[in-house]
Amino acid sequence: MSGAVSSRKAIVLVSGGLDSATCLAIANSRGYECYALSFDYGQRHRAELAAARRVALAQDAVEHKVIQLGLDDIGGSALTDTAIDVPTAPGEGIPVTYVPARNTVFLSLALAWAEVLQVYDIFIGVNAVDYSGYPDCRAEFIRAFEAMANLATKAGVEGGRFHIHTPLIDLGKAEIIQQGTRLGVDYGLTVSCYAADEIGRACGECDSCRLRAAGFAAAAIPDPTKYR
Amino acid sequence: MSGAVSSRKAIVLVSGGLDSATCLAIANSRGYECYALSFDYGQRHRAELAAARRVALAQDAVEHKVIQLGLDDIGGSALTDTAIDVPTAPGEGIPVTYVPARNTVFLSLALAWAEVLQVYDIFIGVNAVDYSGYPDCRAEFIRAFEAMANLATKAGVEGGRFHIHTPLIDLGKAEIIQQGTRLGVDYGLTVSCYAADEIGRACGECDSCRLRAAGFAAAAIPDPTKYR
Repeated sequence: MSGAVSSRKAIVLVSGGLDSATCLAIANSRGYECYALSFDYGQRHRAELAAARRVALAQDAVEHKVIQLGLDDIGGSALTDTAIDVPTAPGEGIPVTYVPARNTVFLSLALAWAEVLQVYDIFIGVNAVDYSGYPDCRAEFIRAFEAMANLATKAGVEGGRFHIHTPLIDLGKAEIIQQGTRLGVDYGLTVSCYAADEIGRACGECDSCRLRAAGFAAAAIPDPTKYR
Repeated sequence: MSGAVSSRKAIVLVSGGLDSATCLAIANSRGYECYALSFDYGQRHRAELAAARRVALAQDAVEHKVIQLGLDDIGGSALTDTAIDVPTAPGEGIPVTYVPARNTVFLSLALAWAEVLQVYDIFIGVNAVDYSGYPDCRAEFIRAFEAMANLATKAGVEGGRFHIHTPLIDLGKAEIIQQGTRLGVDYGLTVSCYAADEIGRACGECDSCRLRAAGFAAAAIPDPTKYR
């Protein structure tokens, strides 16, 4: 690649939730100039996007890009299809809140932006501990995506090597909260609830709310979540 | 997977161009019920989408889905960024008409729809002969994508195996046109030009126009392309 390539820039997927806010803080702490990327994909919990903007701003992202993406046309998940109810109790196996191939789609678009920016580092806050059975949150998926990315792209063909960073993958929710708190993350800006209202207040009942509340309790850190 | 899975349905990426129209005809000829998928990704050549609709209709696709996708927000290609001129002569290496990670993004969205439809077969009309240096048109990329897809998805985790079919990958343009003509493809419905006008008339000068015209000439088949 040309000398214009910087190894100190990174793209960070920022959803507006607790995990990605922590992931952004970790990328910052490692010295990367961070480009935040979010998706307007027809998610029910629209308050997420407002939270993503707050998080990117509060953590000094160089740029925050929101890509329009018609995932709601595809359906198949409680998070994008209003015909499927968001569950209020954990179930067996892969949950209905799983959005088909979501991380694949998100990482593919991050890869496209990375090629344009000539950036080789992409951070995503996936988590295999509390991942609730989502297949695209596992390390083996991430490694397969990296291998594919290096074959898919002009940058890869020309000798660049993309690295998908997953600093949260082996952490429990309490550990994530402790690490983020040490790095100064303001979790009051984030929204985790699958059914948040327009101003970001949480339901307190969905899987995501329960996991978040339990994480703050286990971390012995005050929970700034606003409930309705 | 459950008994509801059909092995006779396929998703076919249909761009409106000559290759994907042929690819759809091949999928049909192999007995698949075809679900056509196109993307409204801010491409300059908007006439492509109208052509995709015509092709899907003429070839009896069960459904034609057009997913909105803000690739123009990312830029980096002459096809989505009006600040980059479409070249009128072939250049060296990977051309400026390369859209960063485009096939990765398109296949990821096809994979998402495939999961919802419980379909394991995806057809894409990539071509490694006339691929003009696009890295994401090579067989090794396709195999890496398949490997990733089977780790990424609920269907893959549950034992399904996605297959990305690339029936054109080793064919020259003339062979593609001959095969499609045998299968009854009406190439007059398709648009290949990178700079087609609103009603689909071609410029006759871009790489894609030259390749198409040379293909019809070499195949000794009358060229139905409308030029302006």
